[in-house]
Amino acid sequence: MEEFRYQHTLKFIEKRFELVDSFELMLSKIKPVSRVEEGRLQAHLDNLTKPVGSLGRLEELAKDYCLKCGVSYPHIPKKCVVVFAADHGVTQENVSLYPKEVTYQMVRNFLNGGAGINVLARHAGADVKIVDIGVDHVFDNETIQAGLYNKKVIMGTKNMVNGPAMTKDEVISAITAGIEMAGVCVQEGFGLLATGEMGIGNTTAASAVTAVLCHKTPEEVTGRGTGISESVRINKINIIEKSIALNRPDPSDPIDVLAKVGGAEIAGICGFILGAALHKVPVITDGFISTAGALAACRISIHAKDYIFASHVSVEKGHRIQLEQIGIKPLLDMGLRLGEGTGAALAMTLIDAAIKIFTEMATFESAGVSN
Amino acid sequence: MEEFRYQHTLKFIEKRFELVDSFELMLSKIKPVSRVEEGRLQAHLDNLTKPVGSLGRLEELAKDYCLKCGVSYPHIPKKCVVVFAADHGVTQENVSLYPKEVTYQMVRNFLNGGAGINVLARHAGADVKIVDIGVDHVFDNETIQAGLYNKKVIMGTKNMVNGPAMTKDEVISAITAGIEMAGVCVQEGFGLLATGEMGIGNTTAASAVTAVLCHKTPEEVTGRGTGISESVRINKINIIEKSIALNRPDPSDPIDVLAKVGGAEIAGICGFILGAALHKVPVITDGFISTAGALAACRISIHAKDYIFASHVSVEKGHRIQLEQIGIKPLLDMGLRLGEGTGAALAMTLIDAAIKIFTEMATFESAGVSN
Repeated sequence: MEEFRYQHTLKFIEKRFELVDSFELMLSKIKPVSRVEEGRLQAHLDNLTKPVGSLGRLEELAKDYCLKCGVSYPHIPKKCVVVFAADHGVTQENVSLYPKEVTYQMVRNFLNGGAGINVLARHAGADVKIVDIGVDHVFDNETIQAGLYNKKVIMGTKNMVNGPAMTKDEVISAITAGIEMAGVCVQEGFGLLATGEMGIGNTTAASAVTAVLCHKTPEEVTGRGTGISESVRINKINIIEKSIALNRPDPSDPIDVLAKVGGAEIAGICGFILGAALHKVPVITDGFISTAGALAACRISIHAKDYIFASHVSVEKGHRIQLEQIGIKPLLDMGLRLGEGTGAALAMTLIDAAIKIFTEMATFESAGVSN
Repeated sequence: MEEFRYQHTLKFIEKRFELVDSFELMLSKIKPVSRVEEGRLQAHLDNLTKPVGSLGRLEELAKDYCLKCGVSYPHIPKKCVVVFAADHGVTQENVSLYPKEVTYQMVRNFLNGGAGINVLARHAGADVKIVDIGVDHVFDNETIQAGLYNKKVIMGTKNMVNGPAMTKDEVISAITAGIEMAGVCVQEGFGLLATGEMGIGNTTAASAVTAVLCHKTPEEVTGRGTGISESVRINKINIIEKSIALNRPDPSDPIDVLAKVGGAEIAGICGFILGAALHKVPVITDGFISTAGALAACRISIHAKDYIFASHVSVEKGHRIQLEQIGIKPLLDMGLRLGEGTGAALAMTLIDAAIKIFTEMATFESAGVSN
């Protein structure tokens, strides 16, 4: 039965998917990362002037970066954080501290360079692309000309407590938009991507998606989002429970889950990660919402995981569960809970550092140091 | 009795100390960090376009940086990693994977820019200063002209398993050299300092210092250093136990501990941290050996801690114990165990990121975002 439903979903996608012959064909083009070069990469690292393995995860990062890209020698990549913005009908249920308008206001802030992700991306030497994938606002020409990518699939999701948040068709459009954005980045020469998001109410959707896909109770994966009180959190859990009970998303069908209790930005990130994997470009996940998209991507293609770096573990309690389910280990644990891609941008500086260790350190021989 | 011995040590220092009227006077000039501005700093952070506290430790870092410097608005500082190099007589006891010669060979590697710390300091936009504080090697003119700071106090320590590693006089000279190096950095306009070290055998000395100062057994604080086997680690523990039993360092007298079972670079780092605190310049500790120096500094002046950022927790098992004893929380946990200042250099990029969050993010009002 579950297999059937998933096939049904794939049929849907095939119908819409115009970039490649079919969605299944696209999925078949996502290949696992080859580990053939691992020994040679490790030998190079072991020959640098340091005790073997003494740079710990920096050495792992350098090696993983090469393996993900399929290169035997890395270069500092052009970097880009792609921020998917969307609105959520469930904000009607008093699940967030902020009004829905903040989503579009923050989109303008992103385009003006004043948000946290702008600051941290500049710090990392990364570009930022902002994608309207489902904001419930008609942006003026000025905003669009400031560089907003228009991939709007919906004017926000419907309130999932009353019925499905999206149709499967909408989800597929959002996934497709995410894949397209990965393609845009690859065409522009970006070699290291990161996911970001903005959407008031989206921790509620991410918690619902995570609960279903990880077979957890909403309580186990629902945190305080932007900083809600315990009583609001209890309400949020209650809303998620009701939404799941009403819509009955199928845990074996990630697209069904995204449609019934997800969000357009989560679906967009799912597609973005699939697109990165398709193009063999490493992609860094950010926080809880981004990782919900990554989780869906890894359920759609088992090889997607190979291309993911996990930047950090946030204070959202479900984030650790997502990371464990995917099987990726975060680099940072800094109490972040902003999203936008901020943790991913910080991790970019660590990956660059790792690449420089690989390429700039002297070997024992070249430095005349006894080994 | 313990009080008496400590006073005795201070008398020693007074005799040697020529930078300030007396060591006690110098210590009295190390003031606790004022927290008067904390509320105002927090109010600024809370007014930036993000949920309150959602950038977690980045926000704390920005605030702490301002408080440590005593400024109400931060600027990106000039940064410097100071690497203290010294040798250890205890290497005769087969406690390390590498021969003693690697210490001076690595000093040349540092000066040529090929070591891990050079790579990561460049990545962080930081300078590197290399200090010969006790290397058992006469450097040629070429090396000295390449920029080596000559603060040589000893030609390596004596083998502590046969008697004290250093005299108190030598320790005091090393602490003084560290204070002087902090002064050099301040004069050159560096506003963020970091500690680094190089010295084959120095995890053995650091373990001994940590065991005594933290009232732990050598087993509890002795790890695998550069990557020794379990049998070599057992030998290392045995050597530390014997050294402590023979020399009977006084846990209440950090200078006695540094003299009997320490090292010149650990004493230099201790002085460097005291000097940073004296000048109100934040200083980042690196790994296990650096933090042994920081521990001694915090025992000499209770206010030294206020000026320290802990960069990371290494895989050396005693490091976590040191950090807990001092009461500082590491930023990174990346399985590092190289030393040299590498973890501290990585942390510099996070502190810069935090400062940029403080100075570059838009406020709710300026961005027109509902709060």
